[in-house]
Amino acid sequence: MVIAQNKNNIVEKIVSLSKRKGFVFQSSEIYGGLNGCWDYGPLGVELLRNIKEEWWKSMTYREDIEGLDASILMHPRVWEASGHVENFTDPMIDCKQCKSRFRLDTLGDAIAEKKKEKIIEALLENLDAENKNEFTAISENHSDINERFETILENPNLALKLLKEANCPTCGTKGEFTEPRSFNLMFKTFVGPIESSDNAVYLRPETAQGIFVNFLNVQGASRQKLPFGIAQIGKAFRNEINTKNFLFRTREFEQMEMQYFVRPAEDKSHYDDWKERRIQWFKDLGMTAEKLRFHDHPSDKLAHYAKEAADIEYKFPFGWGEIEGIHNRTDFDLSRHEEYSGKSQKYFDDELKEKFIPFIIETSAGASRSFMAFLIDAYSEEEVKGELRVVLRFHPKLAPIKAAIFPLVNKDGMPEIAREIESELRPFMKVFYDDKGAVGRRYRRQDEAGTPFCITVDTQTLDDRSVTVRERDSMEQERIKIEELLTYLLKKLR
Amino acid sequence: MVIAQNKNNIVEKIVSLSKRKGFVFQSSEIYGGLNGCWDYGPLGVELLRNIKEEWWKSMTYREDIEGLDASILMHPRVWEASGHVENFTDPMIDCKQCKSRFRLDTLGDAIAEKKKEKIIEALLENLDAENKNEFTAISENHSDINERFETILENPNLALKLLKEANCPTCGTKGEFTEPRSFNLMFKTFVGPIESSDNAVYLRPETAQGIFVNFLNVQGASRQKLPFGIAQIGKAFRNEINTKNFLFRTREFEQMEMQYFVRPAEDKSHYDDWKERRIQWFKDLGMTAEKLRFHDHPSDKLAHYAKEAADIEYKFPFGWGEIEGIHNRTDFDLSRHEEYSGKSQKYFDDELKEKFIPFIIETSAGASRSFMAFLIDAYSEEEVKGELRVVLRFHPKLAPIKAAIFPLVNKDGMPEIAREIESELRPFMKVFYDDKGAVGRRYRRQDEAGTPFCITVDTQTLDDRSVTVRERDSMEQERIKIEELLTYLLKKLR
Repeated sequence: MVIAQNKNNIVEKIVSLSKRKGFVFQSSEIYGGLNGCWDYGPLGVELLRNIKEEWWKSMTYREDIEGLDASILMHPRVWEASGHVENFTDPMIDCKQCKSRFRLDTLGDAIAEKKKEKIIEALLENLDAENKNEFTAISENHSDINERFETILENPNLALKLLKEANCPTCGTKGEFTEPRSFNLMFKTFVGPIESSDNAVYLRPETAQGIFVNFLNVQGASRQKLPFGIAQIGKAFRNEINTKNFLFRTREFEQMEMQYFVRPAEDKSHYDDWKERRIQWFKDLGMTAEKLRFHDHPSDKLAHYAKEAADIEYKFPFGWGEIEGIHNRTDFDLSRHEEYSGKSQKYFDDELKEKFIPFIIETSAGASRSFMAFLIDAYSEEEVKGELRVVLRFHPKLAPIKAAIFPLVNKDGMPEIAREIESELRPFMKVFYDDKGAVGRRYRRQDEAGTPFCITVDTQTLDDRSVTVRERDSMEQERIKIEELLTYLLKKLR
Repeated sequence: MVIAQNKNNIVEKIVSLSKRKGFVFQSSEIYGGLNGCWDYGPLGVELLRNIKEEWWKSMTYREDIEGLDASILMHPRVWEASGHVENFTDPMIDCKQCKSRFRLDTLGDAIAEKKKEKIIEALLENLDAENKNEFTAISENHSDINERFETILENPNLALKLLKEANCPTCGTKGEFTEPRSFNLMFKTFVGPIESSDNAVYLRPETAQGIFVNFLNVQGASRQKLPFGIAQIGKAFRNEINTKNFLFRTREFEQMEMQYFVRPAEDKSHYDDWKERRIQWFKDLGMTAEKLRFHDHPSDKLAHYAKEAADIEYKFPFGWGEIEGIHNRTDFDLSRHEEYSGKSQKYFDDELKEKFIPFIIETSAGASRSFMAFLIDAYSEEEVKGELRVVLRFHPKLAPIKAAIFPLVNKDGMPEIAREIESELRPFMKVFYDDKGAVGRRYRRQDEAGTPFCITVDTQTLDDRSVTVRERDSMEQERIKIEELLTYLLKKLR
């Protein structure tokens, strides 16, 4: 029987389980932590590696996609060409009284609904005719008070007036905010000993640009022809003002990006293909299909580089959230790099006998967000014989530990046989040996780690060299001969 | 017949091969590059991944070592505790005339030997009695002019006087250098929107500290007992003033570090064990034994944290260079973190019934340097039938592509069979299909990529479903039945 999950505390439970079992720790915890940064512990690093490995295989174990690992520090002109220096900003306001800083667009998150209603009422009294029309249009389109508040903040004129009526979420002072100004989300540092703007470089805010600037290098070395892709896994950094929701919005994170270079006329079909392939990838690795959906971006909300865009969203306990984006980036990126570098980025298509800048279909997945989605999706609580069983139902391919080996008791030759099995399996998979406590407790510990198979050496083993293999989800046990064990497990893990 | 390798241009040849074949590209090349940063292309990323995978397996597929993946950005107090804020510096001087900047300790690299002799002569004329004694001592110990020059620069008094006689390597002006001052090699950035010292954080200059600060988190979650280790692979950053020798000294690089926590009284035996195990790891992966050696640090040159230290050095074309360090770090790191964080870092040993801070034996390998050493070590030029053959003799486990599949001609059903073989092998290994050009040329292309096996589908295949498998190093060919091919290759790749 599955116990109904309380949405409000499921993330807290997972954060706590993560620390206790060694999935995720707060970065620099002994120093009070570093906001927006997390460390992956012994089980977490294996889960993360398995996710990345599955992605890498699905992307690069095919003829038309090449791998790449570009550096995190890049030439600063890259970010001028990409538009990040100019556009990768959040609007920020300060409270003049207490100096607290807020993101204008998410100010509403810190204000109660009732309070919002009052602020909007007060705002309405101070609007001139023109502003009133804008206000009415927003109200008609957004009946939800939170949405209405957020949309007003997106309107520059209305936002300024609204700020006069709003209280600082920290100190409560009313209407004492600075005017909004842009804050660039790229982390800046300096190469070489002089801290001047000439030497400023950025930590990449996305891995994609490393692929774009290497387009012709990779194409030349690999002799690929359109359509073909370049895949990369790597860290990226964003100086978020407000980090939140565990691994969902962090300052340091990992991406799995693949950029597929296509003929411009074929963009739509490749875009549609990749959308389907990518959502299927999550499903194939066991993610609940009902908790996955596309969010297609309406054409008036597309990013400056995109012709078409969709998010793959997962239904987190705190709501639907993006775990991957698929974008038709057109020839925007390569054209900009051609313009800014002065180096032709054109491709000669020897079938069409034409030279042109390819279009790019991007699939951009968050490795850290996928990790969190897989972890939450796997989490389950059950009542078994009157006791709570917490189990992580990972797909066997993703499970950090594949098999645990238990001698039933620590004598009668059982530990020796269990060790023998351990040595046989270890070269092929991550295994765990446990001889501590009752077998029931050992099972529970492995359930919480998501280990799909537990192998127990018992008295019967001494007679016929068979062991029990207990499957995590069904809790059913099978007897398997030791000499067939490796083959049995390898088949199940495929 | 192996052609004698010209040491002066072998690195140049490898840099050029790296670009042409897609091992390594200059970072942001279309913008003129970013000094000290490199990108791994399609073949390079596979080689790098294979090296890291072998290391990860050898480290974490054992009972006593846990994995970790800590964040690059850490709490700034970490680097005060570690000593990096205070000590991780290079001495720097500027030419007052042309503003060029130099590292004091490597100034000699830019000055010719004859010139050095003249400078030292001039120096000698301007020394007082006390300085003369110091000078004489140095001269007696260092007959080599380069060593003598370098050692003088290490002596603060003599260095100042020597700078008065030396010319700027850039503009030639004599004796117009600033006094030496310390330059910290950590990259600094700011978390949050305010660029003040309160918000300064650093890009980690080593991965080790992420392990130290997680010692008790990992120990608690994994229930490990001493001795046990924590292994981590990750990027680190050093703002080197002078980058050099391709991947050897870069600003962004990757490390593979394992910290082994031991009882203080057992430090020596673990230190000796790990030294042997680590050099063996390189040999097992095919690195030439004669080009590997230990360099034991003399006790008067040990780092502040070390009781004993050795480098594993590889004989690069430019000389012996460190690819890994093994250090007995004692209880220095955990004691410092205990002091700086105020959180006990002690471990309770339930056999000894004692509470203490463990000693740490560190094995710190450069992934990027290992990559370069494996690449250079694999590089070989031979004369075959009057033609030059360039071949990368990678261990099959490290080879980026494991097998290439060629139809002899592009007709008679050969491409179909070749494609069938490709699909059968692809889920198990990285393969490459090539139907372009004469088979001899296809072999040469794979030799340059280091592919250990080339499979050719020919007329006989059509009769008996056998193919030729050509081994890269011996160039010998065997006929293998298609249905036995996968097993044959998997065995060879193990």
